[in-house]
Amino acid sequence: MSIGELATPIPVVDLDRMAANMVRVAEYARTHGLALRPHVKTHKSSRVARDQLAHGATGLTCATLREAEVMRAVTDDLLIAYPPIGAARLSRFMALAQVSRLRVMLDSSEAVDALAAVLPSGGSRVGVLVELDLGMRRVGVASPADAVALARRIAPHPALEWLGVGFYPGHIRGPAEGQTAAIDALNWQLCDTLDALATAGLPVRVVSGGSTPALWQSHRVAGITEIRPGTSVYNDRTTAAIGACAFDDCALTVLATVISVAVPGQAVVDAGTKALGREPIRGVEAPGYGVLLDRPEVVVSALSEEHGTLDLSHTDWRPAIGDQVRIIPNHVCIVTHLFDSAVGVRGDVVVEEWPIEARGR
Amino acid sequence: MSIGELATPIPVVDLDRMAANMVRVAEYARTHGLALRPHVKTHKSSRVARDQLAHGATGLTCATLREAEVMRAVTDDLLIAYPPIGAARLSRFMALAQVSRLRVMLDSSEAVDALAAVLPSGGSRVGVLVELDLGMRRVGVASPADAVALARRIAPHPALEWLGVGFYPGHIRGPAEGQTAAIDALNWQLCDTLDALATAGLPVRVVSGGSTPALWQSHRVAGITEIRPGTSVYNDRTTAAIGACAFDDCALTVLATVISVAVPGQAVVDAGTKALGREPIRGVEAPGYGVLLDRPEVVVSALSEEHGTLDLSHTDWRPAIGDQVRIIPNHVCIVTHLFDSAVGVRGDVVVEEWPIEARGR
Repeated sequence: MSIGELATPIPVVDLDRMAANMVRVAEYARTHGLALRPHVKTHKSSRVARDQLAHGATGLTCATLREAEVMRAVTDDLLIAYPPIGAARLSRFMALAQVSRLRVMLDSSEAVDALAAVLPSGGSRVGVLVELDLGMRRVGVASPADAVALARRIAPHPALEWLGVGFYPGHIRGPAEGQTAAIDALNWQLCDTLDALATAGLPVRVVSGGSTPALWQSHRVAGITEIRPGTSVYNDRTTAAIGACAFDDCALTVLATVISVAVPGQAVVDAGTKALGREPIRGVEAPGYGVLLDRPEVVVSALSEEHGTLDLSHTDWRPAIGDQVRIIPNHVCIVTHLFDSAVGVRGDVVVEEWPIEARGR
Repeated sequence: MSIGELATPIPVVDLDRMAANMVRVAEYARTHGLALRPHVKTHKSSRVARDQLAHGATGLTCATLREAEVMRAVTDDLLIAYPPIGAARLSRFMALAQVSRLRVMLDSSEAVDALAAVLPSGGSRVGVLVELDLGMRRVGVASPADAVALARRIAPHPALEWLGVGFYPGHIRGPAEGQTAAIDALNWQLCDTLDALATAGLPVRVVSGGSTPALWQSHRVAGITEIRPGTSVYNDRTTAAIGACAFDDCALTVLATVISVAVPGQAVVDAGTKALGREPIRGVEAPGYGVLLDRPEVVVSALSEEHGTLDLSHTDWRPAIGDQVRIIPNHVCIVTHLFDSAVGVRGDVVVEEWPIEARGR
């Protein structure tokens, strides 16, 4: 089947680009002696996760219990980077802990106590990372003292295995040249925390960090042992715009069809908010919600639920109704969450289709 | 089961509020002699669609073929407000046309010709509305002459039934007091189009319009026969902010759990972009992505994929980890697309759960 025969909108993954993205990250991790634990939120697919492990990933990172429940068939080395708060989440976490080697990242005594209360002391232990806030101001303990206090609560518990610390540097978004100062600031705080834990007799075996925007600077982070990139498997317009990948490294596009050219100066395609997500580009200034793969000067300038408007003011190209286009989205992790399946292509040939089976809850 | 026992995040629908919303719209339509054809994109559920028909809707509006394929079990009077462009869409449209009474809204000769080429002339006819651009600048023919030209292409075809015109006034978003001038402008253009069609001997039986923001001004639209509100079944923060519903008419909330209070001045819940959508409020100025049902001064000020940040700077309330909150989203139609099911509640009691079975493609 050729791409032209596909029903639109649908995510289309260039298999060669995806494989090259996996190789590049694995080589970086190997070069710097870092464990590689990709975050599956970007693809939510066991098909892609298996490839990541074959390319050198040592385990996987999940945010939702649904992701972990699907990925346990792929590997038994799972980090759930989300605290198991709430009875339903805790009960699903417990069921997984019985069949998989789990690690969890958390930032509160409530989360530790909830886990400790339900884990049987004779079973396999759950590894615990204390989440640090190193500047993002979202979650994570704020000070070295808070990290020590939480680690002291974890370490003595027979069902918990104190491993170390983790963080998400989501505040570091811009081009590489601007990241050095941000990483220096992050390192001051991280070193203080690692020193305080060492002084308190709480040895740190794991320092887990790394996002895609700051991925290639990860080796500069003090004491880091592991990275958890998500987006890098597909990349997206934002990743390319900040220089964390080349434009030609964007592996996932949303295939769409031109359905109206009635309003002059624009064309409307069948990929709107419900296919692309209303995600701005971040880390640099740029308009719109995506660009065309083969005409990056054409921006998706406006979205409705089922309509995306292509701004034709910077091109002589005038598409016809029925023409297909491939859109590189601003933020690919959202696109995955909006579809039940994706197709893999080589050139214009559809090679396979896989379910996005960890979508949903 | 009480709400407190639900796994979060999940959409929770207040059944009494939803019923009252349906009654209010049906009474308005009856008062003004308008056919009511709700847009199912907001709920994507046959459960809710059946209720809409029981409350006085005369048919349903769909955007996607998936929506129409699900809703044909609810009624055989379906308007597909989207042109059947592309081989896959056309083939699914044809299959539906064989078992349902279909209407379609389109804006191009390409769409007319594609339909005409595949519809058997001896079968049941497909009703056609010409979509007009009355100011939104998204889709729709731009001039009375274009409307006449397209209608002339439709009317003679034995498999097509020329019905009239439709439009979506999505550019009219603000409070009611500001809508009058916009509706006057819309009426000038609409009247010109209706006059041109009458002069051309193309009688218009249907004038289909109506969005939720401009819903209560629909009777001011010249010659209107039908309205297609979507959001009004649930309402949302935007609808309340512009005064098209009361705050207490918001029937759908996203139930979420506080998972971190580590960063001072805020609490983080488990509803992020993948539960709420990154939708700004529109038509008025207001920050954030949603507000709490029982504490509207608390705004969801930031989103990550699985994290929503509650800004606590305007409240003395300090939630504990594990507390549940109910968030009124900015744009409820996106929320529906992000979940596989919703629950219906009366007070704090969960009465039912229904599948959002027209989600997906």
